[in-house]
Amino acid sequence: MALLLHLTGIDEAGWAKGFREAMPDYPVVTLADTFDPAEIEYIFVWKPAPDAFDGLVNLKAVLSLGAGVDALLEHPALPDVPIVRFVDDELTHCMSDYVISQVTMHQRLFTRYSAHQRAKVWSQLYPPASHEIAVGIMGLGVLGSDAAQKLSAIGFEVNGWSRSPKSIDGVEVFAGDARFDAFLAATDILVCLLPLTEETRGILNMKTFKALRRGRLVGGPVLVNAARGGHQKEADIVAALKDGTLGAASLDVFEIEPLPRTSPLWDIETCFITPHIAAISNERSGVTYFSKVIADHRAGNPLRNVVDRGRGY
Amino acid sequence: MALLLHLTGIDEAGWAKGFREAMPDYPVVTLADTFDPAEIEYIFVWKPAPDAFDGLVNLKAVLSLGAGVDALLEHPALPDVPIVRFVDDELTHCMSDYVISQVTMHQRLFTRYSAHQRAKVWSQLYPPASHEIAVGIMGLGVLGSDAAQKLSAIGFEVNGWSRSPKSIDGVEVFAGDARFDAFLAATDILVCLLPLTEETRGILNMKTFKALRRGRLVGGPVLVNAARGGHQKEADIVAALKDGTLGAASLDVFEIEPLPRTSPLWDIETCFITPHIAAISNERSGVTYFSKVIADHRAGNPLRNVVDRGRGY
Ligand SMILES: NC(=O)c1ccc[n+]([C@@H]2O[C@H](COP(=O)([O-])OP(=O)(O)OC[C@H]3O[C@@H](n4cnc5c(N)ncnc54)[C@H](OP(=O)(O)O)[C@@H]3O)[C@@H](O)[C@H]2O)c1
Ligand SMILES: NC(=O)c1ccc[n+]([C@@H]2O[C@H](COP(=O)([O-])OP(=O)(O)OC[C@H]3O[C@@H](n4cnc5c(N)ncnc54)[C@H](OP(=O)(O)O)[C@@H]3O)[C@@H](O)[C@H]2O)c1
Repeated sequence: MALLLHLTGIDEAGWAKGFREAMPDYPVVTLADTFDPAEIEYIFVWKPAPDAFDGLVNLKAVLSLGAGVDALLEHPALPDVPIVRFVDDELTHCMSDYVISQVTMHQRLFTRYSAHQRAKVWSQLYPPASHEIAVGIMGLGVLGSDAAQKLSAIGFEVNGWSRSPKSIDGVEVFAGDARFDAFLAATDILVCLLPLTEETRGILNMKTFKALRRGRLVGGPVLVNAARGGHQKEADIVAALKDGTLGAASLDVFEIEPLPRTSPLWDIETCFITPHIAAISNERSGVTYFSKVIADHRAGNPLRNVVDRGRGY
Repeated sequence: MALLLHLTGIDEAGWAKGFREAMPDYPVVTLADTFDPAEIEYIFVWKPAPDAFDGLVNLKAVLSLGAGVDALLEHPALPDVPIVRFVDDELTHCMSDYVISQVTMHQRLFTRYSAHQRAKVWSQLYPPASHEIAVGIMGLGVLGSDAAQKLSAIGFEVNGWSRSPKSIDGVEVFAGDARFDAFLAATDILVCLLPLTEETRGILNMKTFKALRRGRLVGGPVLVNAARGGHQKEADIVAALKDGTLGAASLDVFEIEPLPRTSPLWDIETCFITPHIAAISNERSGVTYFSKVIADHRAGNPLRNVVDRGRGY
């Protein structure tokens, strides 16, 4: 029995040290160690290589460092065991920090005032109050529902869109594809916190942007995407920002990451770019979470936060 | 008996129309009308001229459109009657919108990421979580206490500084001059919502900035001033932003307004400038508030939100 770490492009040694301290009685190995693949019960992965699961005949679960499992689900040799994704208060907290900062920046017309500052123009264009602006959150899961509640607490109108109906204090929930247009028509600032699935790929496109409410924000409605680059059609975002279909955008994720220097997005002053740092899985809380997942499972309890492969999230 | 409107540089006719509709039984005049100064019981002012109060021998109160009365208190012929200042939920709400947007922008390192975007640099510098950052609010009055509560609700540590001790849920209150240094030493993002008085003039200076906590925010502590330009020593802000004593600033008010084109502040990329629009008194709520002040007072009730001339606010 052992936990195998298979983390690409991040500090694997740091995580291994953390797990060894947290689970002194359970062996923790990395690819650099000598081990018998048949001993591996759990594998903790980030961007696993094509042969990552070879020989793991006694695997009980795949543990995913990412909160989103879209890339993992496309692994060509993903074994038929439960996948546990990372769900963490700290990650959720940081995502809500990001969402609140981007929503309020745009509500207060920061791209407009930045342009005025560069031109040394003093012009009192009064921003709308938060209660005059409706934020529409696509995806009301762990992340979306926390952001929705906090935005409501500071005064925004909040709409949410999910697959299944739900009830969240202060949030008007639109459920299912049939309600998508009604959701967009009631939304000034659109925030994407969906998982990337077959249904949601490319959902941030010109048709969606054109369906947003107009008139409340000078310049036009606003897009904030902190989910996955695969949700967005970047050519449409560029076109929408140029023709005024969108007034501004904040993008943390991109079709190709790092965003190529040739992307026209870099030069659009109404588009605020961050390099996929909305919410980064933190080593300390990741070790705490996954060692508890393993301990609970070994004690005979069911795994939590298991991905539904049928739904794709 | 009558209400005289004396509003300089804003739409006086609009306000007059509003008051006439709200108080159909009480005369409302402006300087353009013919009236007997002895008839005036209330005067509603914004930037009153030196002779504004001449002949108003039966004046019962001065009503101030501004929430801050620093300029009014320096009027050379201010009569010895109560001054009622504007206190309004809508104004408070907009000020908290402004404060939240500026605090979260800087917490999320937006000036750093803007610079990276201009250089087309993808560099994952992870911002601190809101619970790792302490916002220190100078002034815990109507505006400061609302901002403090909302910042605490979205996860920030919040410190407050006021003259008198008070208790606000989730906020550590430092009262009086003796606690000022302790307040600064516990603060990463300093927000000024003080009234401008003899004690507070020039309080945003190099000595204050040097006393702020360092190390939590890449680049250094942050200043947000939405109170009065008289609170700040702009030469010190320029120097502090250049030598790293401050990492960034958001200024809505200035020593001279409009900010002169010659000010070095315009060109500092870590300084975000807005043209005194953090919270603007709104005509509709202003009319509602002051017509109720007049109706209540005429019905024999005491005036509310009366300025204490001794304190200067
Ligand atoms: N940028 C970053 O740094 C970063 C960091 C972490 C996560 N993320 C992204 O954020 C995503 C969301 O994370 P989470 O933990 O909140 O996920 P989650 O708990 O699984 O929630 C997903 C939400 O999306 C809804 N949804 C899924 N498919 C839908 C569809 N076709 N139509 C309408 N609603 C749909 C779900 O509806 P039901 O409630 O009805 O199931 C649910 O409310 C992750 O998948 C990941 O891609 C990004
Ligand atoms: N930029 C804009 O658009 C805008 C809009 C509206 C208002 N403002 C400004 O915001 C200011 C604050 O408004 P407000 O309605 O919140 O005022 P307020 O209710 O009178 O509150 C003032 C606060 O400052 C504290 N204070 C005063 N002098 C102090 C001193 N020497 N040391 C420590 N604390 C001191 C007071 O302490 P105590 O509680 O102990 O009395 C009180 O907590 C106004 O005066 C105005 O200048 C700006």
